[in-house]
Amino acid sequence: MVRILNRRGAIMRAAVLMETNKPLEIKEVHLLNPKENEVLVKIGATGVCHSDLNAIEDPTTPTPTILGHEGAGIVVAVGSSVKTVKVGDKVALSWVPYCGVCEFCLDGTVNLCESAFGPMFDGTLLDGTSRLHINGETIYHNSLLSTFAEYAVVPEMSCVKLPDGMPMAQAALIGCGVATGYGAAVKAAGVTPGSTVAVFGIGGVGINAIQGAKIAGASKIIACDIKESNLELAKQFGATHTVNTSIPDSFEQIKGLTNGLGVHYSIDCTGNTRATETAWHSTRKGGTIVIVGAFNPNQTLNLPAGGFHRVGKTIKGSFYGDIQPLKDFPVIAQLYLDGKLKLDELILKTIKLDDINIAIDSFHNHSCSNVGRTVVTFD
Amino acid sequence: MVRILNRRGAIMRAAVLMETNKPLEIKEVHLLNPKENEVLVKIGATGVCHSDLNAIEDPTTPTPTILGHEGAGIVVAVGSSVKTVKVGDKVALSWVPYCGVCEFCLDGTVNLCESAFGPMFDGTLLDGTSRLHINGETIYHNSLLSTFAEYAVVPEMSCVKLPDGMPMAQAALIGCGVATGYGAAVKAAGVTPGSTVAVFGIGGVGINAIQGAKIAGASKIIACDIKESNLELAKQFGATHTVNTSIPDSFEQIKGLTNGLGVHYSIDCTGNTRATETAWHSTRKGGTIVIVGAFNPNQTLNLPAGGFHRVGKTIKGSFYGDIQPLKDFPVIAQLYLDGKLKLDELILKTIKLDDINIAIDSFHNHSCSNVGRTVVTFD
Ligand SMILES: [Zn+2]
Ligand SMILES: [Zn+2]
Ligand SMILES: [Zn+2]
Ligand SMILES: [Zn+2]
Repeated sequence: MVRILNRRGAIMRAAVLMETNKPLEIKEVHLLNPKENEVLVKIGATGVCHSDLNAIEDPTTPTPTILGHEGAGIVVAVGSSVKTVKVGDKVALSWVPYCGVCEFCLDGTVNLCESAFGPMFDGTLLDGTSRLHINGETIYHNSLLSTFAEYAVVPEMSCVKLPDGMPMAQAALIGCGVATGYGAAVKAAGVTPGSTVAVFGIGGVGINAIQGAKIAGASKIIACDIKESNLELAKQFGATHTVNTSIPDSFEQIKGLTNGLGVHYSIDCTGNTRATETAWHSTRKGGTIVIVGAFNPNQTLNLPAGGFHRVGKTIKGSFYGDIQPLKDFPVIAQLYLDGKLKLDELILKTIKLDDINIAIDSFHNHSCSNVGRTVVTFD
Repeated sequence: MVRILNRRGAIMRAAVLMETNKPLEIKEVHLLNPKENEVLVKIGATGVCHSDLNAIEDPTTPTPTILGHEGAGIVVAVGSSVKTVKVGDKVALSWVPYCGVCEFCLDGTVNLCESAFGPMFDGTLLDGTSRLHINGETIYHNSLLSTFAEYAVVPEMSCVKLPDGMPMAQAALIGCGVATGYGAAVKAAGVTPGSTVAVFGIGGVGINAIQGAKIAGASKIIACDIKESNLELAKQFGATHTVNTSIPDSFEQIKGLTNGLGVHYSIDCTGNTRATETAWHSTRKGGTIVIVGAFNPNQTLNLPAGGFHRVGKTIKGSFYGDIQPLKDFPVIAQLYLDGKLKLDELILKTIKLDDINIAIDSFHNHSCSNVGRTVVTFD
């Protein structure tokens, strides 16, 4: 099926979004060989994420494009300057590659590196060009990955070597909601043993914030959502208490669970400013509210300014859960292998690439859980 | 003049606010002996602060009262359980005593301890009673200190022993604006060597935030204020650049001084939500905005929610500059003695207690600098 061409790259099957708001089409795509700082990965598995639906519906998405930003695979070829992975390595992919030398990278905040932002919006790799073509027509990358395909050429710093025992479908989930949620709790909030945590919005990110809080040793983990089914699910992932935040003044319940003081850490995964305001009121003096959900670009966050300095609270925006992929992905994989982090339970079902539109339609139909993933596997 | 009475306490001279919005009156006041966890301090010097004027004008201030919350002196007597100071010690006073055993104290945030909040509003010491009387009529304490008097009975945890060489007038300033500003930069923001800092509002707190940022090794310290005279003064205390924030979009100037990225740390001492919004825009991705100014209780802080999570910014309220008095006051005093922190330059003039209304009127008349202090000294 796939032919690696020595000089001119590979021909592969991929799910292509020819134009926005259309189903994906399975096509043969020409993939050029990796440049010196790039890696050719044979995709083993890729998750289908709600962000893929957003990209399909977003008129600014460059098309034609190959979506897919949650993936894992085996390194097949590396460019001449690549140092961190070699042929045969099992890798999880990150959609936030970084340069390693800018001010943000040097501060340890590789998640804020700007090198990937332009290419991310332009649908290219880091050098501003594409490796994807059909009969000479450019196909755009997505999130510098494009994992809805048999192969992908990606930046070296999007590849993270995992332990050998890591299964492919589970590995594919690490790079998006798992890393973001785990990182929001463990890295951005810095949850400490014995502390109390409230997680707002139990979706693909929130469920892993709960897992992160549990791993970090929180004594109380309060799942907060407006859907009872999500709250029930949260208990299976480590929530010790649940609060339905559709009830007015629900923050009073959260304070009631924490000696009337409120939690040490709130993690807001909702992208809803009213939830953030509830999170503010649910958090104790000196506590931290981490905002990991994406708000609408035009929204304003309104916080009670009176007493702001007196309560010593911190509100902290977190992109990608403050994750440093090279350091944190292997930790996450090992937590899974040690039985401390649930990933099997996040996989609703596995499908083949030809059935990918069914997985995308399930988001439309709301027939899927917000929490679990459909994973496309390749032979 | 002062008579220490063995059994019934002392008779002393003090400036008494008999009712709000009236001048202070010099009166003879009866001061009871300290209880077991209290300390009798002979006041050596006390600063006159804008907060004293606020208390004079605030109808909720319990009267009659003795104001004054910035002071230093010599320990004259200690209660039976007092361990941290002894008779003869030179001490600076803190208006945020703490219990040492509550959840906030155990987390290291003694500045957020709730034990002092009730007494602070009620005008008593920690046990809910007063040590101050005139002919049997209760005189209320202020900030658990009441330093506009020859003597004060204060909680043990309001007393911090200073190095012997520390002069009294300079010591008196440590416990309010100096600690708060220094702490906002060094402790709450955690300014690091080589980093860039913008300080908004160059008053008694802001000027010391500039000094803290300089001591912490910041490479650029940008003073931001609407008054040119304050900006000029800021340069004498360590500001490397100044920006007049009365100009629209002044944050663009601040970004222009920092590679277009914005500063690592903004310290907002204004209590003005529009300044906070400017501080937000002046701060780089991944940076921190510390709010140490007190907003109006009914105000709302409006922040651009779109992209909040993407920029990874932190907004952190800080009460009393996150200061731990027992640990930080001696450090501040030593920095002064080592010539690294300016305090002499913060003293506009020294006066006697009988002239205290002149110092208070100077706030009304705006004839005093926002930055410097009039200090009352005692023989
Ligand atoms: Zn995703
Ligand atoms: Zn970078
Ligand atoms: Zn003061
Ligand atoms: Zn306490």
